[in-house]
Amino acid sequence: MTWQADILTLFPDMFPGPLGYSLAGRALENDVWSCRAHDLRPYGRGRHRALDDTPFGGGAGMVMRPDVLDHALSDVRGSRQCPVIYPTPRGKRLEQKDIERFSQGDGVVILCGRFEGVDERVLEKHAVEQFCMGDFVLSGGEIPALALLDGCVRLLPGVMGSVHSGEEESFSEGLLEYPHYTRPAEWEGRDVPSVLLSGHHQDIARWRHEKSIAVTRAQRPDLWAAYEQRP
Amino acid sequence: MTWQADILTLFPDMFPGPLGYSLAGRALENDVWSCRAHDLRPYGRGRHRALDDTPFGGGAGMVMRPDVLDHALSDVRGSRQCPVIYPTPRGKRLEQKDIERFSQGDGVVILCGRFEGVDERVLEKHAVEQFCMGDFVLSGGEIPALALLDGCVRLLPGVMGSVHSGEEESFSEGLLEYPHYTRPAEWEGRDVPSVLLSGHHQDIARWRHEKSIAVTRAQRPDLWAAYEQRP
Repeated sequence: MTWQADILTLFPDMFPGPLGYSLAGRALENDVWSCRAHDLRPYGRGRHRALDDTPFGGGAGMVMRPDVLDHALSDVRGSRQCPVIYPTPRGKRLEQKDIERFSQGDGVVILCGRFEGVDERVLEKHAVEQFCMGDFVLSGGEIPALALLDGCVRLLPGVMGSVHSGEEESFSEGLLEYPHYTRPAEWEGRDVPSVLLSGHHQDIARWRHEKSIAVTRAQRPDLWAAYEQRP
Repeated sequence: MTWQADILTLFPDMFPGPLGYSLAGRALENDVWSCRAHDLRPYGRGRHRALDDTPFGGGAGMVMRPDVLDHALSDVRGSRQCPVIYPTPRGKRLEQKDIERFSQGDGVVILCGRFEGVDERVLEKHAVEQFCMGDFVLSGGEIPALALLDGCVRLLPGVMGSVHSGEEESFSEGLLEYPHYTRPAEWEGRDVPSVLLSGHHQDIARWRHEKSIAVTRAQRPDLWAAYEQRP
């Protein structure tokens, strides 16, 4: 079964974009997944095909109309029951467990916002799941959509092949990964830590665990706090 | 002065990709910023132009060699003093204040990893800043690079024009945004909250503040905890 990504956007030419290369691109060619970007503009109203209108209650910015988006979402979803996702700073943080859940179904519909926001009622009607990438502001939902799809596609059967991902193990243990070293062993006066050349597997494992703890404490105090509170 | 983005990647054709459209695309045409993607492959060693090697200390996955990346980084940086950024799950979380700092300089160099990781010594030598988008795994650093650049470019002088961003205000106050509503006032039995039609500005402001609190508590307990602890 082909995993199906439907994206509603004002910029359909942005897709598959970077997902047309590398692992995701090969998977696209092999029909492991399909990527359909739907232009929102034809669903707009009037001569200018307007999608947005001024917000009730005042304030700057424009809001995407519920009737227009409902029409587009209903057309694209048809009778599919898959998750409908709206990337927005107002959402929960996207996490690996969300990506795993999305990748295990038959696909996703992603609504890419521009303007100030989307009328709340259409989000309610379609039980839209709202996610943010992080605490930073982007110009639209398209790049977050690409990130989410990349995360999903690499988990589809056959895409990664036998490629091992230490990152996933790392997240599942709750610590960041230790530093990596490869050849040359001596480079510009910077040596590889000698323990890694020792051949003592226990020492190497202990060193890596200590470095994982150090890097987690330094870079992600939130993860470290959660790790310390584990039973 | 043109803000310059240099990206080191195995997939230079992914750039500018989605950044060739909309706000960022117009800014690119108008030389507000430049986007140069540099292919890492020619810097590889031997007949196969290998960039990576097995990790010291054992383990699965391959590690990008320090000598190869140093050569590429030195070529691309020249005498520039701009930030060198490596998107990786091992980094700090990218935040709006980082994007603001990057956008205020004369550009950035971004190193996009594939494989298991990058030799730690080259990250040290070039004082590379490591950032993660979130707690999810992607197939490479290219899409995070696009996100980071999108965030930077929209902040460059003249790019947004007079476009207002409520999202930024929202982040700066520490709460997520309230729900948005626009026409039609009645839609499929779902009415706009009557307070928004009342014209009472104080009531509207109070309602929006309460909704901001509710959405923040529900979606982002971390932000809510930080908000409550503010002096």
